[in-house]
Amino acid sequence: MAASNVKVLGAWPSPYTMRVRIALNLKNVDYEYLERNPERGPPELSELIHKTNPVHKMVPVLIHNNKPICESLIIVQYIDEAFTSGPSILPSDPYDRSVARFWGAYIDDKWYSSLFGTLQAKTEEEIKTTIEGLSTTFELLEEAFEKISKGKDFFGGDTIGYIDIAFGTNLAWVRVFEKLNLVKLLDETKTPNLYAWSKKFCSVPAVKAGIFPETDKLLEFVKTLIAKYDGLLHHRENV
Amino acid sequence: MAASNVKVLGAWPSPYTMRVRIALNLKNVDYEYLERNPERGPPELSELIHKTNPVHKMVPVLIHNNKPICESLIIVQYIDEAFTSGPSILPSDPYDRSVARFWGAYIDDKWYSSLFGTLQAKTEEEIKTTIEGLSTTFELLEEAFEKISKGKDFFGGDTIGYIDIAFGTNLAWVRVFEKLNLVKLLDETKTPNLYAWSKKFCSVPAVKAGIFPETDKLLEFVKTLIAKYDGLLHHRENV
Repeated sequence: MAASNVKVLGAWPSPYTMRVRIALNLKNVDYEYLERNPERGPPELSELIHKTNPVHKMVPVLIHNNKPICESLIIVQYIDEAFTSGPSILPSDPYDRSVARFWGAYIDDKWYSSLFGTLQAKTEEEIKTTIEGLSTTFELLEEAFEKISKGKDFFGGDTIGYIDIAFGTNLAWVRVFEKLNLVKLLDETKTPNLYAWSKKFCSVPAVKAGIFPETDKLLEFVKTLIAKYDGLLHHRENV
Repeated sequence: MAASNVKVLGAWPSPYTMRVRIALNLKNVDYEYLERNPERGPPELSELIHKTNPVHKMVPVLIHNNKPICESLIIVQYIDEAFTSGPSILPSDPYDRSVARFWGAYIDDKWYSSLFGTLQAKTEEEIKTTIEGLSTTFELLEEAFEKISKGKDFFGGDTIGYIDIAFGTNLAWVRVFEKLNLVKLLDETKTPNLYAWSKKFCSVPAVKAGIFPETDKLLEFVKTLIAKYDGLLHHRENV
């Protein structure tokens, strides 16, 4: 499809942006990618983000035929409904769809609040709580995997689907948290399903296509965030 | 349809529960309603809620053919997809669907955090911020109404749809906030679209069917919440 019809406004460290790009790759849709830099520029792009997402003023924004769509998981659903040129992202059965949406919402609510909570935590107690939140997500998804994947490679079955995209795009952040010695989340013995799944997810062509940030690059970015929030982590020696 | 196939676990003051019941009414689906009391009982129901919604342990839960579906707006989408016996709740066009989902998510994120934030606020500054949050939602939806309704009665057009259900179920809480002299949200001159819409929404048969709590009953309930949170409101004379 013509790239001029589809634009993505995004930022490279953003798992939300990655979701949109992976969904478009899955559907074989060409798109123009406009990258916001860490200083929230360039100005023309910043202006375009404010114009197309006036409520939240955030990336990602998908622009399709000059119409903006906002919020990553809503965009992923839109892509699934608007483009038939690839595998379905959501299951076809209404109940299975509700399960996929449930976990997508869970990841957005709980996982992200724990992730950013850890970076902003001011006390050991707060860090403990947020790290526990991250571990709980892994335990719940480890358990859910068997039921949802029905013995196949992905939450989506034979190909990656909605939950894979919602959660898999966090794997670069997971590696950074492990590198910072904050928490060991992906463990071959503790979470064998997710461990195997993560390897397979990262080798899917639609995912590999230059979207995942390198761990070291993201690590540097996360360190600037930690410094910015000036929470307890900023004052720990090993971070 | 046979009521035995469909159960709703809910609580009367919960706008989330109302969403599910209105959606089922719209689709003419009979259901068995199991009401959780303010003490979170009876015990058998509490146990059933924990079993069917083990992650959040909250109402509402829809049980259809013995399968539980959780999270009110996910349930509403499920009802729309699983039951064809009534008008569509989401629009058919993918872009319009994304707009509906955007506002649904906005209401759940911003409106509720302001609503409960107001009840829990400890300082005048916090109350000011949360009340501003409530007003912002009204201003944004007032503006959005014209574009989305295209001159018709509801966000959903001629019949109520996803945004109507997501937001309309808050109207009883809006009235309570107005009675408590916290904020005047529905105003014939400031928000004429929403003012007219609210009257029409409340007179829709699927909404009227004994679902909306009486303002005075809800007012008493909200007062117990205010006392429980023991925030600043609890110590104000006019509340």
